Amino acid sequence: MIRNLQLTPDGKLHHLLTLDGLPARILTQILDTAESFVSIGDREVKKVPLLRGKAVFNLFFENSTRTRTTFEIAAKRLSADVFNLNIATSSQNKGETLLDTVANLSAMQADMFVVRHASSGAPNLIAHHVAPHISVVNAGDGRCAHPTQGLLDMFTIRHYKGGFHNLTVAIVGDVLHSRVARSQIHALTTLGCPELRVVAPKTLLPREVESMGVHVHYTMETGIKDCDVIIMLRLQNERMQGDLLPSAGEYYKHWGLTPDKMKLAKPDAIVMHPGPMNRGVEIDSDVADGSHSVILPQVTFGIAVRMAVMSMVAGS
Amino acid sequence: MIRNLQLTPDGKLHHLLTLDGLPARILTQILDTAESFVSIGDREVKKVPLLRGKAVFNLFFENSTRTRTTFEIAAKRLSADVFNLNIATSSQNKGETLLDTVANLSAMQADMFVVRHASSGAPNLIAHHVAPHISVVNAGDGRCAHPTQGLLDMFTIRHYKGGFHNLTVAIVGDVLHSRVARSQIHALTTLGCPELRVVAPKTLLPREVESMGVHVHYTMETGIKDCDVIIMLRLQNERMQGDLLPSAGEYYKHWGLTPDKMKLAKPDAIVMHPGPMNRGVEIDSDVADGSHSVILPQVTFGIAVRMAVMSMVAGS
Amino acid sequence: MIRNLQLTPDGKLHHLLTLDGLPARILTQILDTAESFVSIGDREVKKVPLLRGKAVFNLFFENSTRTRTTFEIAAKRLSADVFNLNIATSSQNKGETLLDTVANLSAMQADMFVVRHASSGAPNLIAHHVAPHISVVNAGDGRCAHPTQGLLDMFTIRHYKGGFHNLTVAIVGDVLHSRVARSQIHALTTLGCPELRVVAPKTLLPREVESMGVHVHYTMETGIKDCDVIIMLRLQNERMQGDLLPSAGEYYKHWGLTPDKMKLAKPDAIVMHPGPMNRGVEIDSDVADGSHSVILPQVTFGIAVRMAVMSMVAGS
Repeated sequence: MIRNLQLTPDGKLHHLLTLDGLPARILTQILDTAESFVSIGDREVKKVPLLRGKAVFNLFFENSTRTRTTFEIAAKRLSADVFNLNIATSSQNKGETLLDTVANLSAMQADMFVVRHASSGAPNLIAHHVAPHISVVNAGDGRCAHPTQGLLDMFTIRHYKGGFHNLTVAIVGDVLHSRVARSQIHALTTLGCPELRVVAPKTLLPREVESMGVHVHYTMETGIKDCDVIIMLRLQNERMQGDLLPSAGEYYKHWGLTPDKMKLAKPDAIVMHPGPMNRGVEIDSDVADGSHSVILPQVTFGIAVRMAVMSMVAGS
Repeated sequence: MIRNLQLTPDGKLHHLLTLDGLPARILTQILDTAESFVSIGDREVKKVPLLRGKAVFNLFFENSTRTRTTFEIAAKRLSADVFNLNIATSSQNKGETLLDTVANLSAMQADMFVVRHASSGAPNLIAHHVAPHISVVNAGDGRCAHPTQGLLDMFTIRHYKGGFHNLTVAIVGDVLHSRVARSQIHALTTLGCPELRVVAPKTLLPREVESMGVHVHYTMETGIKDCDVIIMLRLQNERMQGDLLPSAGEYYKHWGLTPDKMKLAKPDAIVMHPGPMNRGVEIDSDVADGSHSVILPQVTFGIAVRMAVMSMVAGS
Repeated sequence: MIRNLQLTPDGKLHHLLTLDGLPARILTQILDTAESFVSIGDREVKKVPLLRGKAVFNLFFENSTRTRTTFEIAAKRLSADVFNLNIATSSQNKGETLLDTVANLSAMQADMFVVRHASSGAPNLIAHHVAPHISVVNAGDGRCAHPTQGLLDMFTIRHYKGGFHNLTVAIVGDVLHSRVARSQIHALTTLGCPELRVVAPKTLLPREVESMGVHVHYTMETGIKDCDVIIMLRLQNERMQGDLLPSAGEYYKHWGLTPDKMKLAKPDAIVMHPGPMNRGVEIDSDVADGSHSVILPQVTFGIAVRMAVMSMVAGS
């Protein structure tokens, strides 16, 4: 159902809510479109007029300066008018429902909503209720999905590895609480990655994770062995103090990516991380800043990928 | 005196502070100008260059994301540069006076101040002290006025009813604490509405309200009978817990607009609300979302009306 | 070392971190460039396309609505895209280091960082680590420097006095805690001001202040006698309640600039203040609003000076 909601009757991307169920054809089209935007960031004038006069609303029901900024940059490079609404501190306090808030903003003749929300499914709910000409882009909802992060990860892998068909990829860390991991798994399986592993202590893995098409490893020794791509996840602060883990130090010892452990991977393996990093917890500084790391290129590609998504849904 | 302050010597709108005393000629000119902006929201490129290179400052001494956003949209559609200043959390803390804050912003070569303030009269005070080329637009001050809301309400009524001369209009709810109601009453009497009613419990009506040219009704049964237009007011949360009313539930029973009560009004009556709504308190969802409701068109027209006001004062 | 960091190998301004060590040639070039921008603020369309398509990030690790707004105005008049990041409330909370935050923003293809930070040296640290094409402009760091404020003060003095070579200038007030004073002293000595005084109670002067090339006065009577320029400093609220001063009233009596004390200065002396003013503490309202005051022109010139700095570093 979500699948249909995301695409127009003639198969174009209209909303981006989740990578779950999105066909490989659309994923590849987004990556190809992003390719054409990468070079814009290097130009003197970093702008194209594709969204000129369009109104893009950043609706952040959950605060995230970094993600909001990446979408704002992408929208302004497309020449859109951008409106930042930090709803957490606003009309929600006045007892208005989410759908009334959105109906009001729609009536201001919005063209696109970029939605971040602590509750899973909020962007879907909004997409179900907006006028047909308005597109919704999910910028992270609860534990559910963070599709533009998943897409920029795919872009990064394709950029450095040329494709997905011969790769061994490991996702390491707190898969249980990670919307990013969910989006990555959906995308990698759809794009044909033959060997996808999740590597974590049992307490940080969802119960049904094998059913998503991944192999489970409980140790780094087997988990990242001969990998082409290692995707580290952020260990959130509340996890370090919670009862799922003994301590941040113990976590680092067993699951932190160190130069020593890197020797298990292929010599040309790349290391990714969605940021912000906890240096000395899930990743050692020597790896984060080392020759395998493509963490900062991920950020750069993220702008191009968001431009691609925004220009595609606006043109649908 | 305020009347003179708002108009230039040759009778053009220079500031918009209150609808009190503004001649029908100016009100009509604003509505006519707004008419020409309504269709811009439907265009591919939602922009006109009327305020290009002008600096519009949103000075919000009181937080209101929604109102701030409507002015930001209007200003950007006119191609202005917009600067959002949330003054509540800023230099006021450093002991600077309101007039020093404004003098400083004026010295930054502002062209327009959109002012929201919890104190009645703050926009007037500012208008008295700014340089002659700067215009002030009131975005709500204390219990005093909210003129652009009043104007968008007039635009909505004229749009659906063709004019004001044969109408019976009821304003229902907390008139006592409503700056919106004050602006509506001034505008409707100026524009020649022959039968204007306020409908509320005694505790929510100002003492001298009849002197404003309205008929007072204490029950919905008589108050909305045969009305063409019903304007519902928001019941603020603090009212529900205060000692002016027994409870939100009691309020809904007597003053909430339900489908049953709607039968008292004319069959083609329209229902308006300034938002945000308390569904199940002052208005039933079946009415809010029903065929009489023009609540969302009000929001759309609000952008056009604010564009009209901003372009008129900037050209004065 | 900072000196070299600020200039390119061929001697152009690349970062603006401090006025300490910046050659007179560069200071004068900034003031001359600003001269050409002053008139833009009076135009119908207050824009020039010098930074079109460039991404300017306002990184405010310390909140300052006023300073942030002046940089935002300057950047938008140069047609840049401006991104406001209030980092105090953001990813720093997630345990990310300052340099990781900056590395991430750099990867978003920023062209310029305008940095405000409570810690002295933060802008220098950032400038040491950014990619070569990115410029850093210090918008105030700890007690260290506030170079654009110092520059706009120099612009104001030159505007009203024609130059620096015959002037007696007094800086009055809390020099100890003032980054502004430090920037002013560096600029005035570099530009050849022959008689520079600091006037304050001993408790508000740094120990080694004479080594900066100033004359120390402990009374207004000798301190502002025959001055051409009097620069008042803001007395911060925490100083008024701290143990360095008896009270705000006592401070006003001895160090507040009153019309009476003004008679000690030259008849055509100018009075400056960086704002926001404490009227009745460091300055009397009759002086602040009187004929000697050039406090509001300082604000206007501040926009032109920031445009000059931003266009120069962007072109380096």
